[in-house]
Amino acid sequence: MKPKRALAIAVATLASVIAQLVTASGQADENSAPVYLTEIPSGYRDWKLISVAHEEGNLHSFAAMLGNDVAFKAFRDGTLPYPDGSIIAALHYGHVASEENDKVFGDPQSFVPGPPSNTQFMVKDSKKYAATGGWGFGHFNKDGSLGTDAQLKTCFPCHAKASRDFVFTNYAP
Amino acid sequence: MKPKRALAIAVATLASVIAQLVTASGQADENSAPVYLTEIPSGYRDWKLISVAHEEGNLHSFAAMLGNDVAFKAFRDGTLPYPDGSIIAALHYGHVASEENDKVFGDPQSFVPGPPSNTQFMVKDSKKYAATGGWGFGHFNKDGSLGTDAQLKTCFPCHAKASRDFVFTNYAP
Repeated sequence: MKPKRALAIAVATLASVIAQLVTASGQADENSAPVYLTEIPSGYRDWKLISVAHEEGNLHSFAAMLGNDVAFKAFRDGTLPYPDGSIIAALHYGHVASEENDKVFGDPQSFVPGPPSNTQFMVKDSKKYAATGGWGFGHFNKDGSLGTDAQLKTCFPCHAKASRDFVFTNYAP
Repeated sequence: MKPKRALAIAVATLASVIAQLVTASGQADENSAPVYLTEIPSGYRDWKLISVAHEEGNLHSFAAMLGNDVAFKAFRDGTLPYPDGSIIAALHYGHVASEENDKVFGDPQSFVPGPPSNTQFMVKDSKKYAATGGWGFGHFNKDGSLGTDAQLKTCFPCHAKASRDFVFTNYAP
């Protein structure tokens, strides 16, 4: 092969490889960009109870975790990873003292949910949410409005530290 | 009327009144003797969530209150008094620190349900449980066995101090 022809082939090959790399990179970016929930899953307040939680620190919150039928069955059966179609709702409330209960008990010892603070969701769809462990995350404020991008970006890195398929909650029997 | 005859009538009347009082008292005791639940209502763990609670003092407990369909609808609609057929379940657990969550948060701030401690029920039947405000109370230990009489006797006097038809719990939206 003549040097000029060899160079031309090499340049063409390089250009093709670069083009493929750019395309692949573009696709990868598209696929790995986190996709967040934009709508509250309907009927979630009627779902079954998975467990409850209480956070202090800066949160002072109660949580009740509810699951749709797919998620609830997986929690109860101990199925891991959670199957596609699983949806977990975390209902958050303030953690406030109950004056009425404390009077009856005679001691300041009783805490109940205050006003709702936010509702968060995890939806399992291993293809749609492949970039975030198969889970789509959602954060909705107390008025139902969508959380900010800054809020939504915190979901996955934190849940990535959970030991059971990105989920912290255990089933409370 | 001769004094002796008046005395005899008075004595007979008194005896009759006493007999009536004794009978009435006997009946009243029979009707007002508290009737407690002896069996766990089936399927309660699948009921919908009414609310959650956290008790400190000597309890250090989490509670999740679930309601059957009749109770849940009444809570959601704010119906008082609760209709016959309402059943409220209070699932109690220890209130324990979550080592896994605390590691992720980097602070000792996260509390989750420990092992179940007991499950309590209130069943509304205004005739059967007329002596205790229309509510039948039940207390079942973590192994499913029935609570002691001493435990069961504490339910009604305490719930009698609640301001909404013997119920402390409010619906958490």
